[in-house]
Amino acid sequence: MKNTFGSSVSVTIFGESHGTMIGAVLDGLAPGITVDESFIAHQMSLRRSVGTISTARREADNVRIVSGVFNGKTTGTPITFIIENQDAHSKDYGELAYKARPGHADFTALMKYHGFQDFRGGGHFSGRITAGLVAAGAVAISALREKNIHIGTHILSCAGINDRGFADLPADIAALGDKSFAVLDDDIREKMISAINDARQQGDSVGGVLETAVIGLPAGVGEPWFDTLEGMLAHMMFSIPAVKGIEFGAGFALAEKKGSEANDTFFLDAGNVFTRTNNCGGILGGISDGMPVIFRTAVKPTPSIFKEQQTVDMRTMENTSLVIKGRHDPAIIHRARVVADSAAALVLCDQLALRFGTDLIAENRKDD
Amino acid sequence: MKNTFGSSVSVTIFGESHGTMIGAVLDGLAPGITVDESFIAHQMSLRRSVGTISTARREADNVRIVSGVFNGKTTGTPITFIIENQDAHSKDYGELAYKARPGHADFTALMKYHGFQDFRGGGHFSGRITAGLVAAGAVAISALREKNIHIGTHILSCAGINDRGFADLPADIAALGDKSFAVLDDDIREKMISAINDARQQGDSVGGVLETAVIGLPAGVGEPWFDTLEGMLAHMMFSIPAVKGIEFGAGFALAEKKGSEANDTFFLDAGNVFTRTNNCGGILGGISDGMPVIFRTAVKPTPSIFKEQQTVDMRTMENTSLVIKGRHDPAIIHRARVVADSAAALVLCDQLALRFGTDLIAENRKDD
Amino acid sequence: MKNTFGSSVSVTIFGESHGTMIGAVLDGLAPGITVDESFIAHQMSLRRSVGTISTARREADNVRIVSGVFNGKTTGTPITFIIENQDAHSKDYGELAYKARPGHADFTALMKYHGFQDFRGGGHFSGRITAGLVAAGAVAISALREKNIHIGTHILSCAGINDRGFADLPADIAALGDKSFAVLDDDIREKMISAINDARQQGDSVGGVLETAVIGLPAGVGEPWFDTLEGMLAHMMFSIPAVKGIEFGAGFALAEKKGSEANDTFFLDAGNVFTRTNNCGGILGGISDGMPVIFRTAVKPTPSIFKEQQTVDMRTMENTSLVIKGRHDPAIIHRARVVADSAAALVLCDQLALRFGTDLIAENRKDD
Amino acid sequence: MKNTFGSSVSVTIFGESHGTMIGAVLDGLAPGITVDESFIAHQMSLRRSVGTISTARREADNVRIVSGVFNGKTTGTPITFIIENQDAHSKDYGELAYKARPGHADFTALMKYHGFQDFRGGGHFSGRITAGLVAAGAVAISALREKNIHIGTHILSCAGINDRGFADLPADIAALGDKSFAVLDDDIREKMISAINDARQQGDSVGGVLETAVIGLPAGVGEPWFDTLEGMLAHMMFSIPAVKGIEFGAGFALAEKKGSEANDTFFLDAGNVFTRTNNCGGILGGISDGMPVIFRTAVKPTPSIFKEQQTVDMRTMENTSLVIKGRHDPAIIHRARVVADSAAALVLCDQLALRFGTDLIAENRKDD
Repeated sequence: MKNTFGSSVSVTIFGESHGTMIGAVLDGLAPGITVDESFIAHQMSLRRSVGTISTARREADNVRIVSGVFNGKTTGTPITFIIENQDAHSKDYGELAYKARPGHADFTALMKYHGFQDFRGGGHFSGRITAGLVAAGAVAISALREKNIHIGTHILSCAGINDRGFADLPADIAALGDKSFAVLDDDIREKMISAINDARQQGDSVGGVLETAVIGLPAGVGEPWFDTLEGMLAHMMFSIPAVKGIEFGAGFALAEKKGSEANDTFFLDAGNVFTRTNNCGGILGGISDGMPVIFRTAVKPTPSIFKEQQTVDMRTMENTSLVIKGRHDPAIIHRARVVADSAAALVLCDQLALRFGTDLIAENRKDD
Repeated sequence: MKNTFGSSVSVTIFGESHGTMIGAVLDGLAPGITVDESFIAHQMSLRRSVGTISTARREADNVRIVSGVFNGKTTGTPITFIIENQDAHSKDYGELAYKARPGHADFTALMKYHGFQDFRGGGHFSGRITAGLVAAGAVAISALREKNIHIGTHILSCAGINDRGFADLPADIAALGDKSFAVLDDDIREKMISAINDARQQGDSVGGVLETAVIGLPAGVGEPWFDTLEGMLAHMMFSIPAVKGIEFGAGFALAEKKGSEANDTFFLDAGNVFTRTNNCGGILGGISDGMPVIFRTAVKPTPSIFKEQQTVDMRTMENTSLVIKGRHDPAIIHRARVVADSAAALVLCDQLALRFGTDLIAENRKDD
Repeated sequence: MKNTFGSSVSVTIFGESHGTMIGAVLDGLAPGITVDESFIAHQMSLRRSVGTISTARREADNVRIVSGVFNGKTTGTPITFIIENQDAHSKDYGELAYKARPGHADFTALMKYHGFQDFRGGGHFSGRITAGLVAAGAVAISALREKNIHIGTHILSCAGINDRGFADLPADIAALGDKSFAVLDDDIREKMISAINDARQQGDSVGGVLETAVIGLPAGVGEPWFDTLEGMLAHMMFSIPAVKGIEFGAGFALAEKKGSEANDTFFLDAGNVFTRTNNCGGILGGISDGMPVIFRTAVKPTPSIFKEQQTVDMRTMENTSLVIKGRHDPAIIHRARVVADSAAALVLCDQLALRFGTDLIAENRKDD
Repeated sequence: MKNTFGSSVSVTIFGESHGTMIGAVLDGLAPGITVDESFIAHQMSLRRSVGTISTARREADNVRIVSGVFNGKTTGTPITFIIENQDAHSKDYGELAYKARPGHADFTALMKYHGFQDFRGGGHFSGRITAGLVAAGAVAISALREKNIHIGTHILSCAGINDRGFADLPADIAALGDKSFAVLDDDIREKMISAINDARQQGDSVGGVLETAVIGLPAGVGEPWFDTLEGMLAHMMFSIPAVKGIEFGAGFALAEKKGSEANDTFFLDAGNVFTRTNNCGGILGGISDGMPVIFRTAVKPTPSIFKEQQTVDMRTMENTSLVIKGRHDPAIIHRARVVADSAAALVLCDQLALRFGTDLIAENRKDD
């Protein structure tokens, strides 16, 4: 499949940047999960552009749920989210029909779709399509919360400026939920925003690293081969536009460690097994060990910059240059973090349903 | 699915470290591909342990193909590879039935399989299971070569010692094919091996980073969302035991760059489109752009070390310690590189078949 | 997956009978296929209720395409069809929240969704959901026509009255395309309609058998095991509500034949291989043989009848009876036939893309 | 995928009639299921040829389990079954490399595999490949029994002679388990065998209808669309060579009934919901209703007959005739029934794991 991900719980996304609607179909989620539209709206607001560090495009991003919710709860059948595109300025994009923007998918789209792709604003490749993922993810996040599983992502670094790492995970995750610019160290916020604004003023852009933590995931989820928990999360995370790397636990730093430093030793506390360190990021042999799942994703700088760039005119097949106009983000990392939360939640709902069945939430209910 | 990966071309792996047989079923590959058993044997030898830097376990790893090959060529139906386990010393592992080795999957296997798992030598979690992947991958590599697609992996770093990066890719890939310890800079080889031996003598282990390059992949392969080329490769690569990170092109380093530095500008040469740099690793918008696909995988140090480690006795649920005995690798990175080539080849065969149909090779034949 | 079908070309359906919207996402279809909205409207009209033999519910069934079509042609990315529900009378259904209608999915929905399902009008189980399938199928049918593959379904029998069988397939299929009540023998039409009306007047309902033919499908499509062409078509066809059987070629009648009668002998005509008979329904070993693919599906009588029926009150867990009110079809077979065409087209587009790649239509274009 | 079926529990089959080995990989089954090798051998014996009514080819069909079973129980990781081919007479098949046997897959295999297929004895299309399915199915059947789910198939008709229908299902299913020629009415056995022998003496063959019943399946299994229980079972059943039709419950006969006759009314007995009739075959809206699942499959007569048949020489592309030699079955229906049981068991294990999670059996164990 192409725009569908997941096996027991799956999400299908659709739409183009300047099309009529974008959206998502979330299927397979347990029945009986409370759907909180204000939480969805909140999550959408975290993804939306803010202030001068984001695109001037302003979309209300009102999410309509047109199926799969009845009396405020999931039915167990497909939940469809639609979002109308409103503030699309297609005239800005004329030249881009044939001049491939460096760092964008214009050229590869042409190679794959032979010129039939909707090139306006990046079409189906636009980061805007993640709005559907965030809407679906909001319901997935709600479902996980009912099982005491919580996810949080912060901007570990941006433009060379570093946030502090995770410390008290429950508190850190809770605090991140309401931040429109998600750093753990509030003192660092203005520095990062200032660096983003500097890049914007230079007609340039910056990237960064996101760090995501999942707490409460039970041990025993994931597969030893192929559908490892790392593999499933990575598979999904590379769908977030601009993500070019992912690492779990100590990740690439493990390559420099000795085994005696890297191994997380086990110990008992009140009858439960824990590890003293978490270099493995909560996953051993592809399977969750009950410790927090930790991963970092590398986000490249936004490819839409306003400097003149060399490229090829695909009509005439001649070397040329282009200057991108329109409205663009000098950074997307602060918007991508809620996409990371959402994407992770969708993967985990699927993994939990595969492991424990489709009644997960219903079982919870019986205990009430 | 669990031990099956791929859609049009798929691979299923099976077996345990100390079981009767391990192997793989490779399905969906085009008919008419020449199967060169000596090339398979060569690839198996690259995976096998060598000298003092690898486990003392010695397996002949004779691969028998028991289906799917007729008159020396693939039939188009499932190709089954079986490898008998011979040199298994199960008695070495008794204590490990209940003492979880740090860094290993013993604890997570128990959480998932409730004690029914074959714990001997890591059972189904053992790196030994990659032998089936290498056998299947050898045929996939052969299939890709018929389409002028070539894959090579070198040890970019090990124990803190760095190899040079890729330079002349066709020559570098060709040179790597025969190296039992795959570094591009031959002067670095002995230094790395020496560092591995040092770790061994300390009862410790080391990790490293593999770098893989694919040349000849046509533009237009991969999907914009979910089944991005990065996502598919990452999904598979995390199946290689000990891999904890992956990055494409400039990867995590992109997080520190400006857009103007990160964007790969396009130019024409003899009617073909190229990029001047390859920070994106040959993939834009999830789709190949015709440039080399480049990725790096982080390999953690082997968790089997010979120092005393803290752990939990899962029978008595008491804190305890263990000292691992048996035969183990102080490093696996030199063995993992052929697994990386194989795994990548399997992903690419699947992607090509999805994109261009199951007759890929048959079409080639018509041109002869 | 649950509401998604297909691998390279897939369809996802969503919605409930009395919800806000129903629809479908069609993904993976080749770029460059002309999307004819008037043809989609025509196909929708064939599915819609007509005259006294269908439900009094009247829906305009205006299909909006909100993604995946650009300048009148498919882009290659997901095509989303949405249809607003308008004429829903939810108050008719109150009692059905707890009294399971015999022959309907009310009871099984309760067992699966624990009371959270939208029970109004059958909710997600309603035949109305096939509207999305018909919209998606219309584009699939158009795509197949560009490859000279044509599909037609007629009502082989209804209420014990038989239509003639297929004879001149290209002419028969062409003639069926415009018929709102699809019989090949026009003299039989009024008899069937009269029998349906008789059932209606008795508060009862009737079923029938649909026969579908596909011409132009090349030989070599399908798999020997599991994803046989019969298996894939059957898998899909049982999604059409009320279908309880399927047979290919001579089907169940083959069970009574000798091998010498059943075997279809091969012969050459103008360099092409044909079979003299087509008892196998165009499929041997799971793979198309180039002859017409022929299958028949058994459609049970509409379960909504107006006679008093015994059932169980699921609130009080007592035996009770119910009399269904509301608007219902005394027969659905005349409406189901366009669903059969659509469903078959979706399966075939997927099979063709898997076999020949995702550029099928694009390749066509190059020949122009 | 091609030779893999199932999602949470999957089976992969491999091999050719005259190849080295055939077999299957069964993956995803819960850990802790007792594997009874004598039961597997018993099931294999039911599939094997017997007496004069079956092929003279005699295979011991010794099944070796080479992975996934430890201390006599499933581990939860892939279980691999291999069976060596012993009694293959490849020289019998020379002419069949280019003369397509009517009713066989020789022609379609050529269209798909371009001459690279292993044509000997039907190669990968041979009914012999079902041996792997029966081996895997035996373990699936054992797993279902631990959950009190039982499956039985009888020969409802063969050569125009009818068995009685199912009556006391638990007793009937139990009785069928040991019958090498599975009819419920023992008086009918000799008549059917005699009719098969008559066909054999005429160099001809016969088909029949199998009827399968499943008891104990809980209500609430299956999906409303696409992955309906009928659709999943049908998808799988068409993999049994020679199956050309399937119907559930009253099946095609429903097409002739009125709704008031077809609807199965609900009633309570001791707090449980039942239906008075079972015209729907235990499935409503694609989901099990807790009543027995009943289906019938049409099996065409064996295509290997010994009469002269018209065909095409694919080398010279000329019309010709052929007379099949070698060893063949005048009927396969008595051998196919254990394949039907096995195939159904594999589908149900997958559906149950998807619905209730992968620990199904482990949960059972906790109750002990």
